[in-house]
Amino acid sequence: MKKIKGLVCSKCGKMVDETVMYNCSDCGTEGTLDVIYDMDLVKKELTKEYLLNNDDKNIWRYMPILPLETKEGVAPLQIGWTPLYEAPRLEKAFNIKKVFVKDEGRNPTASFKDRATAVGVAKAIELKKDIMCAASTGNAASSLSGFAACMGIKNYIFVPKNIPEAKLAQLLVFGSNVILVDGDYDTAFDFCLKAVDHFGWYNRSCAINPYLCEGKKTAAFEICEQLGFEVPDKVIMSVGDGCSISSVWKGFKEFYDLGLIDKVPTMVSVQANGSNPVNRTYRRNSREFDYVPPSTIADSISVGVPRNGYKALNALRDSKGITVDVSDDEILSAITELARYTGVFGEPAGVTSFAGLKKLVEQGLIGEDETVVFVVSGSGLKDVKSAQKAVTRPELVKPDMEELIKYLKVN
Amino acid sequence: MKKIKGLVCSKCGKMVDETVMYNCSDCGTEGTLDVIYDMDLVKKELTKEYLLNNDDKNIWRYMPILPLETKEGVAPLQIGWTPLYEAPRLEKAFNIKKVFVKDEGRNPTASFKDRATAVGVAKAIELKKDIMCAASTGNAASSLSGFAACMGIKNYIFVPKNIPEAKLAQLLVFGSNVILVDGDYDTAFDFCLKAVDHFGWYNRSCAINPYLCEGKKTAAFEICEQLGFEVPDKVIMSVGDGCSISSVWKGFKEFYDLGLIDKVPTMVSVQANGSNPVNRTYRRNSREFDYVPPSTIADSISVGVPRNGYKALNALRDSKGITVDVSDDEILSAITELARYTGVFGEPAGVTSFAGLKKLVEQGLIGEDETVVFVVSGSGLKDVKSAQKAVTRPELVKPDMEELIKYLKVN
Repeated sequence: MKKIKGLVCSKCGKMVDETVMYNCSDCGTEGTLDVIYDMDLVKKELTKEYLLNNDDKNIWRYMPILPLETKEGVAPLQIGWTPLYEAPRLEKAFNIKKVFVKDEGRNPTASFKDRATAVGVAKAIELKKDIMCAASTGNAASSLSGFAACMGIKNYIFVPKNIPEAKLAQLLVFGSNVILVDGDYDTAFDFCLKAVDHFGWYNRSCAINPYLCEGKKTAAFEICEQLGFEVPDKVIMSVGDGCSISSVWKGFKEFYDLGLIDKVPTMVSVQANGSNPVNRTYRRNSREFDYVPPSTIADSISVGVPRNGYKALNALRDSKGITVDVSDDEILSAITELARYTGVFGEPAGVTSFAGLKKLVEQGLIGEDETVVFVVSGSGLKDVKSAQKAVTRPELVKPDMEELIKYLKVN
Repeated sequence: MKKIKGLVCSKCGKMVDETVMYNCSDCGTEGTLDVIYDMDLVKKELTKEYLLNNDDKNIWRYMPILPLETKEGVAPLQIGWTPLYEAPRLEKAFNIKKVFVKDEGRNPTASFKDRATAVGVAKAIELKKDIMCAASTGNAASSLSGFAACMGIKNYIFVPKNIPEAKLAQLLVFGSNVILVDGDYDTAFDFCLKAVDHFGWYNRSCAINPYLCEGKKTAAFEICEQLGFEVPDKVIMSVGDGCSISSVWKGFKEFYDLGLIDKVPTMVSVQANGSNPVNRTYRRNSREFDYVPPSTIADSISVGVPRNGYKALNALRDSKGITVDVSDDEILSAITELARYTGVFGEPAGVTSFAGLKKLVEQGLIGEDETVVFVVSGSGLKDVKSAQKAVTRPELVKPDMEELIKYLKVN
């Protein structure tokens, strides 16, 4: 009945007991842990039949391979099973057989992070932890904020002072206790860790708490199911700390290990060129991250020290992954181009994956007969200020037909 | 095979042929039309069995009673089948048996308007109209903008100059041709009508084009299905032009006429007290709308002349409806209270329905044993500026544990 075998360190590979709270005892915070399941046990329940007959169109359909004993702490919010759109207009423009957008902006608080939070909150309730906390550039924060409000859980959220106003307002609306830290994301993150040590709060950080990534991996399961258990050739993701890409890779691997799919995709890591520690380190074939102060418009993936760097490197290595760096200008263009081709409006970090796809196409690195999925990790409504940089405000028009006709001739 | 019998005028009751473009010839723009189906024909297809066996979790599951011949113009965006959340914490706070939130912010462009647009765009494609237009305070606009981008349809959007920046940016991102009108919503609306006359564009306005409301009515169908064909006692909606409440009422009536449900709900119209033409007129037991310049923070329902006033009055009359007016302060409080009780973040117009529910509870107008649904028509991310008015920005905290402990004692 015990589906979890243990937790394995992403840095040194040591296996630890699942009661370990947070990190590998040898590697410290660098040693983030991965949950390892007893696949023989999981296999008995999680079959293709089981999935095809399951009407639960949300992440809880994957309970047999989620790190929870019961559904006691499951929030009523509709989480996951986000749309996977085929984008025929992009297929034509890029000359690729199949292009799909996974729109994670359709989650309850409009980002991919909700998958992780849903599992984190449920785990906190299972562990009888009554206060949660997070450090975040925004999306993980608003996600915890929303789910905690829904479940009535007290929470503290550490945010850097440069957090976009829209993201800050959302936290305050949900009634979180916001700690606006006089510093950047890395400072807020370390400060939150100290507070966790001091107060014993339950940490909603994918880069610390191994159970969070378990929520994120469900996106891979959904992609498999939504494509009728056919696996895409490439899965393209925006990368900051490295949690999302490694979690999604874990999802594909688990479905493969369960015999539900017959191959795995190549993972593509797209980073902003002003914040590319994972890509840089992978290309150097190194496992040492050198710190460079991050600088990108894509605040959700603006990261100096990748908090889940080893998991990301492992995912790239194991999937024979590809790295792509894109500029802020390319990210801004990607906002409007994606919206105009598909109707999906993403935030800067959300469309960074798409900017990466464009670059791969330009470089001839995607074959005509490939099937490609890119994940848009957050809604454009989360950071309209950046979107405004990508567009031009129109002139005022007087409500007069002659004026209109004149205006339309010019514009 | 012809499921549409004709169109009936909401003002004078005259039946016209479905080829009539837009309004009743006798009543002009005041005479908005309702689509009347051959229910005997619809009944043959749209049965409880049909619905229970339909895996299409979007508005197209209701094709037998939508005004389209084929699915040719159906956008691939995931539209409708938004979550209906039970809100146990509200039930307890309000002492009501069952309280449900219908979260329309989960539509593709984050508002209820997407239901109407989806049908409007499909109809335009069916009618071989290649340019669409709309006048809007924002949500209808961004909705048309997103769907038109997805389907590659050229479009012109008339917006008043006071449109919130976040909403304007969304239109520009999607590549719409935005006509920023030097005037208010009513001016933009009339200007758009003139342009439609002149250029022959297809008008995406629920207050003009009868097919649009057909998309909106699907919210009622979903509520019925999501509650296992049990009908709530009251359905509470924010009201501006009157299109949404009348469309949802039409949905309940149609399901009743089809024998799918055995009663209909009481419709509750909630308006801002600075923009309450429907409620005011209904309470006066009149059918004459007197113009008062609108003034409310809830821009999506800020309306001087209700463009679908007769439909709204008919819905209130036929459902023995209730009207509630709320202040801007009550709307602002509703943003945070709803978010903190349910995890749903709504825009001002979105939570106006909830502010109305609160008021009904305070006035003792909801019985303990009732089942109540309120519709949140748009996401709070659409108008974060208003949300910011409802919250207080926290002070900066230095990243030091002693500072934190001091801060937490005070805050």
